[in-house]
Amino acid sequence: MEQLTAWWNEAVGRSYALKLLDMHMRGASQVMLQNNVLTGLLFILGIFWGAAAAGNLSIAIGAIVGLVIATLTAILLRSDEASLEQGLFGFNGILVGVAVPTFLVMGPATWFLLIIGAAFSTIAMLAISHVTKLWGVPALTFPFVLTTWFLVLAAYSFGHLPIGGMGPPALPSPLAQSAPGIDLSASVLLSACIRGISQVFLINNFITGIIFIAALLVSSRWAAAFAVAGSVVSVIVALVLGANPSGIGAGLYGFSPVLTAIALGSVFFEPSWRVALFALLGTIVSVIAQGALDTAIAPLGVPTFTAAFVFVTWLFLLPKLNLKPHGHEPVSDGIMTGK
Amino acid sequence: MEQLTAWWNEAVGRSYALKLLDMHMRGASQVMLQNNVLTGLLFILGIFWGAAAAGNLSIAIGAIVGLVIATLTAILLRSDEASLEQGLFGFNGILVGVAVPTFLVMGPATWFLLIIGAAFSTIAMLAISHVTKLWGVPALTFPFVLTTWFLVLAAYSFGHLPIGGMGPPALPSPLAQSAPGIDLSASVLLSACIRGISQVFLINNFITGIIFIAALLVSSRWAAAFAVAGSVVSVIVALVLGANPSGIGAGLYGFSPVLTAIALGSVFFEPSWRVALFALLGTIVSVIAQGALDTAIAPLGVPTFTAAFVFVTWLFLLPKLNLKPHGHEPVSDGIMTGK
Amino acid sequence: MEQLTAWWNEAVGRSYALKLLDMHMRGASQVMLQNNVLTGLLFILGIFWGAAAAGNLSIAIGAIVGLVIATLTAILLRSDEASLEQGLFGFNGILVGVAVPTFLVMGPATWFLLIIGAAFSTIAMLAISHVTKLWGVPALTFPFVLTTWFLVLAAYSFGHLPIGGMGPPALPSPLAQSAPGIDLSASVLLSACIRGISQVFLINNFITGIIFIAALLVSSRWAAAFAVAGSVVSVIVALVLGANPSGIGAGLYGFSPVLTAIALGSVFFEPSWRVALFALLGTIVSVIAQGALDTAIAPLGVPTFTAAFVFVTWLFLLPKLNLKPHGHEPVSDGIMTGK
Repeated sequence: MEQLTAWWNEAVGRSYALKLLDMHMRGASQVMLQNNVLTGLLFILGIFWGAAAAGNLSIAIGAIVGLVIATLTAILLRSDEASLEQGLFGFNGILVGVAVPTFLVMGPATWFLLIIGAAFSTIAMLAISHVTKLWGVPALTFPFVLTTWFLVLAAYSFGHLPIGGMGPPALPSPLAQSAPGIDLSASVLLSACIRGISQVFLINNFITGIIFIAALLVSSRWAAAFAVAGSVVSVIVALVLGANPSGIGAGLYGFSPVLTAIALGSVFFEPSWRVALFALLGTIVSVIAQGALDTAIAPLGVPTFTAAFVFVTWLFLLPKLNLKPHGHEPVSDGIMTGK
Repeated sequence: MEQLTAWWNEAVGRSYALKLLDMHMRGASQVMLQNNVLTGLLFILGIFWGAAAAGNLSIAIGAIVGLVIATLTAILLRSDEASLEQGLFGFNGILVGVAVPTFLVMGPATWFLLIIGAAFSTIAMLAISHVTKLWGVPALTFPFVLTTWFLVLAAYSFGHLPIGGMGPPALPSPLAQSAPGIDLSASVLLSACIRGISQVFLINNFITGIIFIAALLVSSRWAAAFAVAGSVVSVIVALVLGANPSGIGAGLYGFSPVLTAIALGSVFFEPSWRVALFALLGTIVSVIAQGALDTAIAPLGVPTFTAAFVFVTWLFLLPKLNLKPHGHEPVSDGIMTGK
Repeated sequence: MEQLTAWWNEAVGRSYALKLLDMHMRGASQVMLQNNVLTGLLFILGIFWGAAAAGNLSIAIGAIVGLVIATLTAILLRSDEASLEQGLFGFNGILVGVAVPTFLVMGPATWFLLIIGAAFSTIAMLAISHVTKLWGVPALTFPFVLTTWFLVLAAYSFGHLPIGGMGPPALPSPLAQSAPGIDLSASVLLSACIRGISQVFLINNFITGIIFIAALLVSSRWAAAFAVAGSVVSVIVALVLGANPSGIGAGLYGFSPVLTAIALGSVFFEPSWRVALFALLGTIVSVIAQGALDTAIAPLGVPTFTAAFVFVTWLFLLPKLNLKPHGHEPVSDGIMTGK
């Protein structure tokens, strides 16, 4: 493996085309916060498998288009070279490219929307990163979430952007207590844990989930372990709280907690028991946040994407060591201070 | 009183158990931005009275559980000692603990939700404080508002979290001009002013309101005066704008303006005539913001909690002395600057 | 022209009354990011024309009241002198003053609301400017948007604030593909381009649009050119995406892109081909954002105002030169760092 890596890195150093390829694959891998060519390649393989199985190859083509457009936009904007090489300007674009064909019916106007959206995702990444850097945290997938909210919400306003797999808008209504008889079998629950991982790329497919786990293993055993553990925890919490069984089975309570678990447990902190407990709390809160955001967005008829992951992980990364909150005492330089 | 304080402080210095008790009571008192053991004790007394009167003791038990869990979480996270001792890690937790049993039906899953929520409120406090400190303002009760929005919105998505006193979700509809004959009597209006203060802890009870005023008097006469004045102003503004009479009577237009008045008039600025006028404008805007947020959240079927107080008070604390807004001129280091 | 300017500036230096007038006119001109007395005067003329044509003079009176109250509030708060003189504390107030009579039926309570709102818009300007200055971007018209959302949302909660030209709240529904036969004629499209500019002040009037273009020409040819180009682009994009023809005809897809084009193309960056392409992308995204925000706000029954302009322009100004996003690596001082 190490030899292969050395050989690849040397090849990348010699050829700009290979360097571009490298950059794009790393961009794909950054969706799960990894920086690894092979992981990215396997992610794309998993997307193609899932898209083919769902009979919608536009999803896979959209992924490639989104990845390329977002990365090229970053190059044209003369973005930071090191960040480009790590794929930090590709992961939002590939997600935009997967999401648009998943929720809208593709046609000329929709492809135009996808391309504008992918280019815009890079500007959103730069914009949000500037703000979150002041706070000492990463942008995570918020550029993707924000961009794609714009795109799919706009679809309700424009007649040439036909809506496919989302909506209709509806006021929230309390979920009935799960009826007896819709019990989830052990095999459905196991499948749910795997599908929760495939849903990180909005794909509901067992094999894709397995490919994604393999892709993580290539990059980091800790990342793979936290991904699986996060998915298992999310299914348990969803059962305890009484979530919709079909949502659990499709992995819809899993993708945000999976990302939270990877992020808190293996990427932004060094793995340890203390960190694992912290990540466990974050994972549980992500399931609750997923339910909350599903309710909050229901009247708009669009998905929440990975917003639960982003908001919860931000809230768990923002607390800084030795932070002393602003107390309940006079502000030092307010407009009425000293007057 | 001073002798009592000295004796208590000495006792707290000798016993860790008393120190913990002290910390928790101060945490309760910080809900109205005070740092006083006796105030906190009286607040808890008022909560127990209100909960008993409403026949829902879970509210009082939830208050204690939320307060303890939030404070212990802060200790486990090794938070700033001085802030802990002032109760800055307890006030959001006690509010989470009061809110969950007020709006949801308690059972095993709901208590689990309350405990996770209270622990999370401390992480939210640390996270939000880091951001707002960069802006030179306190987090106020936003950690409570954000956490509890997550919890009660999630209740619509999960079958084991039955909804009690909130909703149903509905599109906003213009309020009919108040019919003649539903005139509010003087005694109802007086009661409304007191209940507005009790509603700071989500309680609709006259005696609780009186206990809360007494609790404020123990800590600060200015705070008590601004609380009462804020409540009176809120009732007048609500009448002038034509609010729902039953909402006025229950104090629902009062709790946010009361907090805004205490905050702007007596806590974050030194009381003066100029400051009082500034606080008056803030109090009026809080009533408008309360009406606005009630409209905005109606489709989701959850309460606004103290969001009106938080948003308005932030907006009145953020203007800094000698601030020079960014002008409408070229930005110095934008991505297209100098290209 | 230069002689006239010199004569006026000298007169302003001698008379405080003229200085106040100067300040107010510049405040009006800052709605389109200009700093020019004559531009402001022409904007107000355009507003009076539009208000008279619509048979609702309250709109013009509200504009003056809002402008004066916001500016006086800034003076009373001892705001930065240079910013005052550039009109930076007037443009949000004039927009509040135009918006309230456009969407609500005026009466004693509504005028009270307008006046409180205009005063509050200055506090919101100071507050938001403090935050956005930390980010290196201007507040744009967000103080107006935020203030007026509070005011018009509150109208649903208060019986003495009757709703006029907005709503009703409704869940979004996909727009039917534009039926054949409602084709837009060339003259309607030309008119749409002009009305898109008049809609910056919420006015749907061809003559007002022409006056506004003249007003921009007085201040900056680039601003006028980008305004017209932005409006033309917005109409084309709206047609491509299949927007509602009556909305296109009324200029409702134009006002935000017009402002984005002026801001990115001529104010915050120096005009160039590269900047023009950047502004073009921003203008296209503004049309998409307009459609998205229209969907998102539909359940609340209030307008989006210039939110699409604000959010998109912020996102295009925030990317800073040589920005290096926070990578996906351990955070340096998180609460679990090094433990």
